[in-house]
Amino acid sequence: MAIVLGDNRYGKAEIRLLRVARHADRHEIRELTVGVSLSGDFDAVHLTGDNRAVLPTDSQKNTVYAFAADTPVGEIEDFALRLARHFVATAEAVHHATVHVDEHAWEHIDVGGAHHPHAFRRTGEERRQARAVAEDGRAWVAAGLDGLVVLKSAGSEFRGFARDRYTTLADTTDRILATTVTARWRFATLDVDWAASFGGARAALLQRFAGHHSLSLQQTLYEMGRAVLEARPEVAEVRLSLPNRHHIEVDVAAFGVAGRHEVFQIADRPYGLIEGTVRRQDAPAGPALDW
Amino acid sequence: MAIVLGDNRYGKAEIRLLRVARHADRHEIRELTVGVSLSGDFDAVHLTGDNRAVLPTDSQKNTVYAFAADTPVGEIEDFALRLARHFVATAEAVHHATVHVDEHAWEHIDVGGAHHPHAFRRTGEERRQARAVAEDGRAWVAAGLDGLVVLKSAGSEFRGFARDRYTTLADTTDRILATTVTARWRFATLDVDWAASFGGARAALLQRFAGHHSLSLQQTLYEMGRAVLEARPEVAEVRLSLPNRHHIEVDVAAFGVAGRHEVFQIADRPYGLIEGTVRRQDAPAGPALDW
Amino acid sequence: MAIVLGDNRYGKAEIRLLRVARHADRHEIRELTVGVSLSGDFDAVHLTGDNRAVLPTDSQKNTVYAFAADTPVGEIEDFALRLARHFVATAEAVHHATVHVDEHAWEHIDVGGAHHPHAFRRTGEERRQARAVAEDGRAWVAAGLDGLVVLKSAGSEFRGFARDRYTTLADTTDRILATTVTARWRFATLDVDWAASFGGARAALLQRFAGHHSLSLQQTLYEMGRAVLEARPEVAEVRLSLPNRHHIEVDVAAFGVAGRHEVFQIADRPYGLIEGTVRRQDAPAGPALDW
Amino acid sequence: MAIVLGDNRYGKAEIRLLRVARHADRHEIRELTVGVSLSGDFDAVHLTGDNRAVLPTDSQKNTVYAFAADTPVGEIEDFALRLARHFVATAEAVHHATVHVDEHAWEHIDVGGAHHPHAFRRTGEERRQARAVAEDGRAWVAAGLDGLVVLKSAGSEFRGFARDRYTTLADTTDRILATTVTARWRFATLDVDWAASFGGARAALLQRFAGHHSLSLQQTLYEMGRAVLEARPEVAEVRLSLPNRHHIEVDVAAFGVAGRHEVFQIADRPYGLIEGTVRRQDAPAGPALDW
Repeated sequence: MAIVLGDNRYGKAEIRLLRVARHADRHEIRELTVGVSLSGDFDAVHLTGDNRAVLPTDSQKNTVYAFAADTPVGEIEDFALRLARHFVATAEAVHHATVHVDEHAWEHIDVGGAHHPHAFRRTGEERRQARAVAEDGRAWVAAGLDGLVVLKSAGSEFRGFARDRYTTLADTTDRILATTVTARWRFATLDVDWAASFGGARAALLQRFAGHHSLSLQQTLYEMGRAVLEARPEVAEVRLSLPNRHHIEVDVAAFGVAGRHEVFQIADRPYGLIEGTVRRQDAPAGPALDW
Repeated sequence: MAIVLGDNRYGKAEIRLLRVARHADRHEIRELTVGVSLSGDFDAVHLTGDNRAVLPTDSQKNTVYAFAADTPVGEIEDFALRLARHFVATAEAVHHATVHVDEHAWEHIDVGGAHHPHAFRRTGEERRQARAVAEDGRAWVAAGLDGLVVLKSAGSEFRGFARDRYTTLADTTDRILATTVTARWRFATLDVDWAASFGGARAALLQRFAGHHSLSLQQTLYEMGRAVLEARPEVAEVRLSLPNRHHIEVDVAAFGVAGRHEVFQIADRPYGLIEGTVRRQDAPAGPALDW
Repeated sequence: MAIVLGDNRYGKAEIRLLRVARHADRHEIRELTVGVSLSGDFDAVHLTGDNRAVLPTDSQKNTVYAFAADTPVGEIEDFALRLARHFVATAEAVHHATVHVDEHAWEHIDVGGAHHPHAFRRTGEERRQARAVAEDGRAWVAAGLDGLVVLKSAGSEFRGFARDRYTTLADTTDRILATTVTARWRFATLDVDWAASFGGARAALLQRFAGHHSLSLQQTLYEMGRAVLEARPEVAEVRLSLPNRHHIEVDVAAFGVAGRHEVFQIADRPYGLIEGTVRRQDAPAGPALDW
Repeated sequence: MAIVLGDNRYGKAEIRLLRVARHADRHEIRELTVGVSLSGDFDAVHLTGDNRAVLPTDSQKNTVYAFAADTPVGEIEDFALRLARHFVATAEAVHHATVHVDEHAWEHIDVGGAHHPHAFRRTGEERRQARAVAEDGRAWVAAGLDGLVVLKSAGSEFRGFARDRYTTLADTTDRILATTVTARWRFATLDVDWAASFGGARAALLQRFAGHHSLSLQQTLYEMGRAVLEARPEVAEVRLSLPNRHHIEVDVAAFGVAGRHEVFQIADRPYGLIEGTVRRQDAPAGPALDW
């Protein structure tokens, strides 16, 4: 049976850049990590090493830097979209371009109660994320975040579950619920106020996580996804990946200490992994969110 | 528009275990990392927190340990398959189970020219991998590896590529080609000698990487995939993900040292990322290999 | 020549725990990572495997959990000190105990403008750190932080440096200065308001970094150390380890884009590493700060 | 009290390089990671930002590349020594130079039973290490390794240890003993066949770990250090850092599976950490080995 080339793509990953905007009274900085992935008519390069269609990944990197320099970066959704459209429009063999942009947040350092104009502190491990896909004159945008670590010390149960011969877990009506949120949502439209949309979606995730009484992490996932859809009409579908960061109560009574349900061992591995999507019933199709 | 639950799955990730086989004259050890992911009739847990269908991820972990204890583990493809079939067969709500098994290799320490019977050294960062998917009485198996770091110091060119206004890369007829191979391949059948198949596929990847004259990493990817298919008739499709670990020649002439194309800076980021599949033309469909 | 045992120590590393304080109106949580290291009369265990003097590292872990349960944790400097003194006081063979405590900060999630009583978000990668050393009835405490990522987009020069045949770097009067601060400082006394001291020292580090015009990262290091000593009389010595996170300006003019000193490549490796201590001239001696 | 500068040093860390030796019939490659750290008369740069004494870390990086290009690299102990002496000899302000060199091993890929001349596979996570210190016309060399993961499935006990109120651990006469060896040893002389010495020391560590019946990891540490000193007369002192990678037997009887002491959970954290030095009684002093 003949051997053939199947799906393929190529690009540059983890292009890291800092963009400084030098305003008269203050600077603003942006820390971005960009990834480009292209596909299209690339049979020849795979089959015979004919590179005429191949825009080097080095050129892709240069393009990202040039686009970052040429105009204000703006919201990362727009930046990703401009880049994705550029590759499809200008590289003849490219029929499909996906561009990922991750952003680390920074804030001005406070000195004497005021923002220092050009000194900054990175605010943490959480990243805002955007992805744009361009193909055949069409385009899709998704947004999201990762590295958002949250915990509830009350309002979380897990009981009444299925049992088999391997089940030893006890029902609990009061457990620690902790996870590192990875959330991605795709838009039904490109006519979006990206900053407001992101802020609203993130707030919806956090507030539903906090306010909701959890009977399982699956239910919490569904509620968090639903909260985004309720808050943001421009969002068509939300995908959440929630590792269950297990906290195991330490039996301090074994050491003669009165147990008060207050000390927990934080486990690394294994961990539960709950993944799911929540969407509007008739949401238009779009690229999958498991990026 | 109504909000509905979309695709979802849950399970336990990174269950780490050591299995010791205590033979009369020697021990053998296996270091496995197992992940379980289940889907099926789980609407109620998401929508209302009704957990009756939910086999806890803790029970899944226990199952993995029990299966590892109950019989010899055997090849990881078989171990993954037994586990995947178990979950579909015994958990009523589960219609689909995916089980991943990664294995780190260990070897007996040599003492006085002989293998010590119960002392071992881990051989490295490379991992053998297997994945089984069970669903509706059917099952699929895929195998693979990651962490295989390879390099060619000759026999690699990259020239004649497309150029645009952002292109500054020069043609080269002699570059360092280095990558960390992630390869996954799926089988057209379950009637396979897994160990022989894995060994043959791995050797094919390495030997084609070595023996092939590379005109691009894309071409090398295709050749490596093709080599597996040529060597192993039981394999239907191969997916390769090859980060291009860039090695940048240092201009030592700037320091008054005769340049001989011998010293290279090893770059971390950004890196090229070349991904693709090679398959038999009429290969039966199966679960995607981008796990 | 006879072979003898030299310096040695043992303990439990990376004991991770969450402590929940359940107040009537709200919870408070603490995420701590604790390490214990003991030394003393442990010749027999090394030389002959006589374990009678060895308090197991598992018991050390239990002790940490029990101490966390028994009373409020309080400031991490105090918690480390209580633990270190405990091991020296109760384990007969132990003459010296070092206890490290790292703390990740969490904050209440805001819901409707108010703090949710039992839902939390981890604030980032920065960690507050403490170390206590107990020995022969004496004790020392040091405090610090790591993971504090800061950047100045102006106010940083590097010029007039030594040149040799390998020097190609150009003078600059305007560069990006970025580092991840690791700072440790030791106290001349144990009679300290730990929380106020930490807050004051951290603010001094940040404000001096921001406000100071940098001629080199070495000078900035000295200034940051000096700022802590000026702000906090209870501090005897400060040690800083400052990796120079290089930001390399991208030559966007090569792509026909007007260069405005605004786009920088963020480099991973290699990086400069500047380390130094700043102390009061007649500071009493104490354990070294290079932990 | 006056504020003064204390100990300080600066340099370039994690300079990564590949060195290719192009022989007529085959290539050989070396993957090195080099770190440089200098100290001396650097008060002015810290106190006033006067950089005249400062050889930039960028120049240090260039020097490493130039030295790698100029002659064969040779054994990493020699390479580190040449570099350390260079900095002290040529940079006027530098009185002390420490150079670290780590090496990842590569091997030729086998094709058709023979070594391919220019295609290579990295052999794993273990690294050979060297450190040279030059100061005032004197020099010291140390060697070592890290990332060597070993395990004994028999021949390891831990019993008869001290017990306090927090002790719950049971005696065991048969446990899994596993560790990731970090070992460093310093030489009493510089007149050493570095390759033979390293090979002999590494073999001694492995064989003693394997052959020795362990009553504690402390005893194993001492035996491993002693083995190096017994095997290599040129070595004055050995320092070992041995994390105890805990393997916890799974109680499979709870699942109705006959327990046979064969399945173990591999724990990440916390872990025991055993550190110690073994030396010749009258070994000359030298730089500490806790690098």
